[in-house]
Amino acid sequence: MSKILTFGEVIMRLSPPGNKTMKQSHEMEFFFGGTELNVASSLATMGCNVTHISNVSDDFVGESALSFIKSFGINTAFINKNEHPLGLYFLEVGSSVRASRIAYNRLNGSFANIKPEQIDWKKALEGCEYFHWTGISPGISEGAYETLKEGLLTAREMGIEVTTDPAYRSNLWKYGKNGNEVLKELVSYSTIFIGGVNEINEILGTQFSSDQQGFMEACEELKKQCPSIHKIFDKIRIGVTASSQQTQGRALVNGNYFETVFLEVDNVVDRIGTGDAFAAGLIYGLLNFDDEKALNFANAACAIKHTILGDINYCSAEDILEVMAGNSGGRIKR
Amino acid sequence: MSKILTFGEVIMRLSPPGNKTMKQSHEMEFFFGGTELNVASSLATMGCNVTHISNVSDDFVGESALSFIKSFGINTAFINKNEHPLGLYFLEVGSSVRASRIAYNRLNGSFANIKPEQIDWKKALEGCEYFHWTGISPGISEGAYETLKEGLLTAREMGIEVTTDPAYRSNLWKYGKNGNEVLKELVSYSTIFIGGVNEINEILGTQFSSDQQGFMEACEELKKQCPSIHKIFDKIRIGVTASSQQTQGRALVNGNYFETVFLEVDNVVDRIGTGDAFAAGLIYGLLNFDDEKALNFANAACAIKHTILGDINYCSAEDILEVMAGNSGGRIKR
Amino acid sequence: MSKILTFGEVIMRLSPPGNKTMKQSHEMEFFFGGTELNVASSLATMGCNVTHISNVSDDFVGESALSFIKSFGINTAFINKNEHPLGLYFLEVGSSVRASRIAYNRLNGSFANIKPEQIDWKKALEGCEYFHWTGISPGISEGAYETLKEGLLTAREMGIEVTTDPAYRSNLWKYGKNGNEVLKELVSYSTIFIGGVNEINEILGTQFSSDQQGFMEACEELKKQCPSIHKIFDKIRIGVTASSQQTQGRALVNGNYFETVFLEVDNVVDRIGTGDAFAAGLIYGLLNFDDEKALNFANAACAIKHTILGDINYCSAEDILEVMAGNSGGRIKR
Amino acid sequence: MSKILTFGEVIMRLSPPGNKTMKQSHEMEFFFGGTELNVASSLATMGCNVTHISNVSDDFVGESALSFIKSFGINTAFINKNEHPLGLYFLEVGSSVRASRIAYNRLNGSFANIKPEQIDWKKALEGCEYFHWTGISPGISEGAYETLKEGLLTAREMGIEVTTDPAYRSNLWKYGKNGNEVLKELVSYSTIFIGGVNEINEILGTQFSSDQQGFMEACEELKKQCPSIHKIFDKIRIGVTASSQQTQGRALVNGNYFETVFLEVDNVVDRIGTGDAFAAGLIYGLLNFDDEKALNFANAACAIKHTILGDINYCSAEDILEVMAGNSGGRIKR
Amino acid sequence: MSKILTFGEVIMRLSPPGNKTMKQSHEMEFFFGGTELNVASSLATMGCNVTHISNVSDDFVGESALSFIKSFGINTAFINKNEHPLGLYFLEVGSSVRASRIAYNRLNGSFANIKPEQIDWKKALEGCEYFHWTGISPGISEGAYETLKEGLLTAREMGIEVTTDPAYRSNLWKYGKNGNEVLKELVSYSTIFIGGVNEINEILGTQFSSDQQGFMEACEELKKQCPSIHKIFDKIRIGVTASSQQTQGRALVNGNYFETVFLEVDNVVDRIGTGDAFAAGLIYGLLNFDDEKALNFANAACAIKHTILGDINYCSAEDILEVMAGNSGGRIKR
Amino acid sequence: MSKILTFGEVIMRLSPPGNKTMKQSHEMEFFFGGTELNVASSLATMGCNVTHISNVSDDFVGESALSFIKSFGINTAFINKNEHPLGLYFLEVGSSVRASRIAYNRLNGSFANIKPEQIDWKKALEGCEYFHWTGISPGISEGAYETLKEGLLTAREMGIEVTTDPAYRSNLWKYGKNGNEVLKELVSYSTIFIGGVNEINEILGTQFSSDQQGFMEACEELKKQCPSIHKIFDKIRIGVTASSQQTQGRALVNGNYFETVFLEVDNVVDRIGTGDAFAAGLIYGLLNFDDEKALNFANAACAIKHTILGDINYCSAEDILEVMAGNSGGRIKR
Repeated sequence: MSKILTFGEVIMRLSPPGNKTMKQSHEMEFFFGGTELNVASSLATMGCNVTHISNVSDDFVGESALSFIKSFGINTAFINKNEHPLGLYFLEVGSSVRASRIAYNRLNGSFANIKPEQIDWKKALEGCEYFHWTGISPGISEGAYETLKEGLLTAREMGIEVTTDPAYRSNLWKYGKNGNEVLKELVSYSTIFIGGVNEINEILGTQFSSDQQGFMEACEELKKQCPSIHKIFDKIRIGVTASSQQTQGRALVNGNYFETVFLEVDNVVDRIGTGDAFAAGLIYGLLNFDDEKALNFANAACAIKHTILGDINYCSAEDILEVMAGNSGGRIKR
Repeated sequence: MSKILTFGEVIMRLSPPGNKTMKQSHEMEFFFGGTELNVASSLATMGCNVTHISNVSDDFVGESALSFIKSFGINTAFINKNEHPLGLYFLEVGSSVRASRIAYNRLNGSFANIKPEQIDWKKALEGCEYFHWTGISPGISEGAYETLKEGLLTAREMGIEVTTDPAYRSNLWKYGKNGNEVLKELVSYSTIFIGGVNEINEILGTQFSSDQQGFMEACEELKKQCPSIHKIFDKIRIGVTASSQQTQGRALVNGNYFETVFLEVDNVVDRIGTGDAFAAGLIYGLLNFDDEKALNFANAACAIKHTILGDINYCSAEDILEVMAGNSGGRIKR
Repeated sequence: MSKILTFGEVIMRLSPPGNKTMKQSHEMEFFFGGTELNVASSLATMGCNVTHISNVSDDFVGESALSFIKSFGINTAFINKNEHPLGLYFLEVGSSVRASRIAYNRLNGSFANIKPEQIDWKKALEGCEYFHWTGISPGISEGAYETLKEGLLTAREMGIEVTTDPAYRSNLWKYGKNGNEVLKELVSYSTIFIGGVNEINEILGTQFSSDQQGFMEACEELKKQCPSIHKIFDKIRIGVTASSQQTQGRALVNGNYFETVFLEVDNVVDRIGTGDAFAAGLIYGLLNFDDEKALNFANAACAIKHTILGDINYCSAEDILEVMAGNSGGRIKR
Repeated sequence: MSKILTFGEVIMRLSPPGNKTMKQSHEMEFFFGGTELNVASSLATMGCNVTHISNVSDDFVGESALSFIKSFGINTAFINKNEHPLGLYFLEVGSSVRASRIAYNRLNGSFANIKPEQIDWKKALEGCEYFHWTGISPGISEGAYETLKEGLLTAREMGIEVTTDPAYRSNLWKYGKNGNEVLKELVSYSTIFIGGVNEINEILGTQFSSDQQGFMEACEELKKQCPSIHKIFDKIRIGVTASSQQTQGRALVNGNYFETVFLEVDNVVDRIGTGDAFAAGLIYGLLNFDDEKALNFANAACAIKHTILGDINYCSAEDILEVMAGNSGGRIKR
Repeated sequence: MSKILTFGEVIMRLSPPGNKTMKQSHEMEFFFGGTELNVASSLATMGCNVTHISNVSDDFVGESALSFIKSFGINTAFINKNEHPLGLYFLEVGSSVRASRIAYNRLNGSFANIKPEQIDWKKALEGCEYFHWTGISPGISEGAYETLKEGLLTAREMGIEVTTDPAYRSNLWKYGKNGNEVLKELVSYSTIFIGGVNEINEILGTQFSSDQQGFMEACEELKKQCPSIHKIFDKIRIGVTASSQQTQGRALVNGNYFETVFLEVDNVVDRIGTGDAFAAGLIYGLLNFDDEKALNFANAACAIKHTILGDINYCSAEDILEVMAGNSGGRIKR
Repeated sequence: MSKILTFGEVIMRLSPPGNKTMKQSHEMEFFFGGTELNVASSLATMGCNVTHISNVSDDFVGESALSFIKSFGINTAFINKNEHPLGLYFLEVGSSVRASRIAYNRLNGSFANIKPEQIDWKKALEGCEYFHWTGISPGISEGAYETLKEGLLTAREMGIEVTTDPAYRSNLWKYGKNGNEVLKELVSYSTIFIGGVNEINEILGTQFSSDQQGFMEACEELKKQCPSIHKIFDKIRIGVTASSQQTQGRALVNGNYFETVFLEVDNVVDRIGTGDAFAAGLIYGLLNFDDEKALNFANAACAIKHTILGDINYCSAEDILEVMAGNSGGRIKR
């Protein structure tokens, strides 16, 4: 059983049921998630041995989050509790021409107050094949940045593959550091880049175009500036409306470009966590298949996640392989 | 802040959750609305100063309706209570090839028992720029007709713009008056007509065709017979299925014809109140933009309302402008 | 009022709300149904006089099932209670590219323990014009097979039309009999076959192709081997995705082939029971229309059932005729 | 199987879930009921053959009500549909020191528009042993009064026992008749009076005291003025708080006074329909037991109804006998 | 109509439905409240003209809070929006021997970031008869303390009555000030003290006993140290279990001691906000009745609030007067 | 961290929400539990290291059960999947004088099909201090009996304490063995008996009285016939009504009798699993306290479980210690 470590915030999502607005509601559904925990949960659901590192609040909210994480069989031994509240966000789910809206409450939460000294990275990473991080974590607080950096350096020393989805989010990075500079630094400690032209342009300050040619040039430039990166996989999600989406993957590995077919998803249930489903699918794919099949698996994982409510992809590898094989959902499995 | 007055029934909608039928349900969601209150609420949400005139029941149902209306910041000082029950309707929401169904209980309700003497129209209309009414109100009872007529005459005296959506509904008009005659009379006290060939044919007894030529001829005939009308705006909603709709607006102003693009809405959440969203969008547009932009804004308001549960368009002007700008909902606003 | 008898399991469906998975839920919606009861309920809703024969558990679950059946006005006088639990199944409803999943708990239930001696078939069938059965029942237990067989033989003696939807389900037939042999035997006691190339190939062990030519040949072969069959009606459901489906009917009657148009259903609410809606529509159609109109009615019934939650088609004949007339659901019936 | 006829409004109850107020809710649970239908449903649940006579609305609300009534196996052949809406009421459920509140919408509904000519009383009453009515029906409309009167006269001619719960409600009787006079007239067509000092004082204009002596004197006076009355049974419900109640029954039959013990109910779930549960329990008791046991059974039925949500007593005779035997609910029936 | 100003945090409550724990839930009910807003809402429900001063978040959560506040007709003109998230807390509701549990997330929220310069106190207080504050606000942040202090000084200058419920909460006061010192200072700017021996002992550092004698001595000491205080009203809530409570009020005014009876509440629905209901009842009482009746009214308001879900007392003055008159809730108001 | 092993069925509970009956519901809440899993979950919640041995169904229902069990951090490595459905039961929750009702569906489920050869008891019991079993398991099937017996013999060999709650249930034992004989055999492999006079009388066929004297004599007789038993602890639950209960514990250890106070629980939320809470509390107590304190802790655990919905006691040891200390729940923990 492959062992994987993920690091990042455990965040609670609160959302009025269905497509309601908050003004129309007296109740909200809640889910736990967080971009890296979403990756962890999906990998655990597919049978991997996963350790997630984070902080939760030392109250019944944090206890509930821990129960949730344990329910996937994820190792929680490296999750600490502190006196700060668990980070959370509110989501109004859009439909068709109406976009979804998010309001965050995370910048002073339990994860934002993480400190490097609370984690024994050597011990946590022992036996791991993959360490996954995203650009959200270092944007939350200096402590999260420092802690992550220490983990990355340890992982590199130990020769562990480091995957990164270095999403830059303009609503983070309030603590004084320059997001793009930090991301470039941390990417340079990583080995597999999950992102495309937008992400590269943001990190490097370049202006590559988003067509295939631009993608390939951007990848080369990234590899030049961050030489530890040896594989680049990109997910493309085209939102026709809030209820109809298309997904595609493309990659540059060893100078070879390849891409997947477009998968179409009508009747979208949830867009949150589709990128994380891609990342989890990719890691699972790299552990079990060749690079091209891994990309196709990742894209199918991304597509099927659009049909699952909440942050997390509850689908098994078998479910994903069916989508990858082109089987539409128009049947009933008895 | 523009001041607008609306007049009409406050009605409660009761609907089984989702697409369930009543036989399948033990609970119903409820919403307050009413065609003119829907216009009022949308205008208030967009920042206008709105007064709504109506009756509610003198019980906890009426109290709840008042709280709801106040939550938009709408002025309720001219709403009276009486001993009759609040009007209501039941809705079974259709899907795809199955149409929605409505059953009314309104003809002996608190609004049906409204009387002209209970309203000081001069005082209520003071400072207003617009007075909006629809063809529903005079169809409910003689008292509603008399009260509305007095309001319209007062508004015309005071030089206030009067907008009308003169929908003829065959399931009303049970109290003895001829609906089309009454509507023609009341339209002749109005200045902006929100309707098209169907409405004009019904009111005037004409038979214009529904193409552009027919629309323009119908408008000219209407202006001839009701000379106070100086602008005509029409909304076109094409229901592909109960779950897929198209909307378009067209207008004749000062002899100039113009029309909007078609907007497509998949995954329709609610069709009720989409015409009211158009009317509110139009009034807001006329107060803030030129006539053509107003029409486009109205059409976008109509489109986005299809994604909101209940009678009322909870969207802000910014949300509507995004749809008008052609931004699909396939993104998440963080 | 036409009198019809149906025989089969009363089964409870348990399903997380919406598109949730069980892991995401703490509650489930429940519905009663069962393929033959679905036919019975739809026919009763359309005004037929229906008797359903089955067993239920002798506890409050069985009592609830009986109340449910009575609510349609179905005659329950021939339903017995026994000490075994009511059969049930769990359903996770898919969406788009994600298929639905079912887990059964029925093989030791109250219906599985049915015995021929508990039913007075002569009395039950008195005055009936139609007797409907499906291939599910004889697959559940030997007792169900024996009981059904006795009923069929009695019906044939009494000259009653026997309709069958002989679906072969590989997850049944655990009690030792060969499913295809049994089905062939029971079909040979029937008069109207509701099924197509797949069903015929399974029962006869043939390999006809699924095009029109193959369909016609398969029908001829079936009629040769089971000469009591005089009409064959087939339903075709094409699942584009779990949320988008197409339905069509075709038939061979007296050597004449005819087929319906394709009906498209977007925003599918529920796929369970769509075949049963077809069967009920067909029986109603045969009782009220000519064969070709009956097929069109059945196809429209099948289409509209996709918009109804649960196993049962709650639509009236008028609702179905509207779909058959090509009226989409994009309107509101006030 | 004893045959019983009941006559009265089918009314829908709409109530926010739990103890919420309407202002706090966006949804309401709904139930069908009505004082006489509650008696009918309870009797049918206990195995009696019951016919209920009423009107329902000719829309999907009325259809749902019919399904509900049929689910008890009640004969609905004498229920008509008309174009008026189904009567309904809103209920805010109190708790402890907070009282429950009701708002009605029934005076122009489908039952209020009932007419004597729509019912063939001879046919409906054929074979009946009991006819049950209450004082609610004649208070709703002149038509309801006239229809009921015709039924009572027919029942008396046919020698059927007529039970009455002649509750006078001051919020009815809006159509011009004097409630107490009408009730006295109708009681004089009845044979078993279910009521006590309050009811007698209201009907006769007397001022008997509520102690045992006053009760006995009041009964004698009632029998003097309405000589067809031969048995009088009274229910006493003492509301300690909205959550804690006591019930007792007393009776005067053939000059003999007897009374039951007090039954205490903590954690009251619903107070509506407890009097109807008493009436149903009494009729069942009179059909199956002696007068004193009947009174005890009625009192136990009244007590257990306090634990059931909605208007209707879903308990079996066995459940009621257990309460009557003094078994508290502090056990689990496996 | 009496005009009252309140100042304090608008906080969102999130709670699993019923008595569930978070681990057992996937959804939470939400309510807006906050100790001073609870007072404001109750006063507005009873017909007072209320202005509430606070901050909300500049997102859809803050917008929802504003709608909620407006629904009571409360003036929101002095509420600002800022970029910090709305404060919130999670509540697990206990039952019987299990206590309720709360987890807060408020210390970096929109109200905690309030600043004195954002409020024009002179304008806000114009025409007010009462200004109400509690000890929660100054415990949240230095800004809240400074802002409140400025308001109090202005109110005193303008001769407005200042009521205070100076609750000391040990889980606040994280920003560096000594809670008891600050409270003593702010109480010395107030005129009516709502609290008893515990509160006085905390603020003054004294050790009076909680019997009547101790209460009277504590009051005298408080008046000596804070001479602007001229009336002292205390609420006593005895929690028998989480489901059963008793309330009593006592007071010292002009040297006269008086107290109310004990009111018992079984089947407690919600304990939150019962003290605020007392405060609102007291202010309403002081405006409308004499001091002793005001205390009794306050105590009845406190009792009835235990039966209402959420933070806010939705009861009218009439409802409260009934409880005060000793009418239990064991009846139904039709 | 103490290590404990439990063995028994994982069963799903399905229950209409609140106090509704199934006939009134369209949805049910579901919970996983089972008498021994309840003990396991409570011990894990209190921080113990617990392994549970069972079977679950090899479908998404079984997967959900596994997730649930893992969420407590319970070791599931010894749980197998098979093709039989997960056992389940339906529960209608009573109130006050109405008893709760249960209908089971478990006798052919995944646990009933357990086989001795599937478990490596030596490995599973390694390091365990306690092995807990109940009388439910051997009553389900011969396989369950054989498997349990093997486990008990292994545990005794390894010198592990064996606790048993030997509840005899008459609705089990359908597979041919005599329940009392089997229970006596299995108790004779155990060391700590959790039960009282009723259980001893059933197992030994004796007729001891239920007073203290009878209890002591029964204990002595049990120890004589089953000499491995060295401690006996009894729980007494007195159900005043379904909503009001009392609990007490008593014990005989080394010839010493001791008992706890009575704890009263009003407003009972759930009675299921209260005995299991006692057992878990007792084991936790024996591991951490002396025998008498252990009994008091067990009794408090039993009491507080009455306030938790579902089968499982979610309370921490701290929560239980508070109840044990006599702190009522009438307070809020902030």
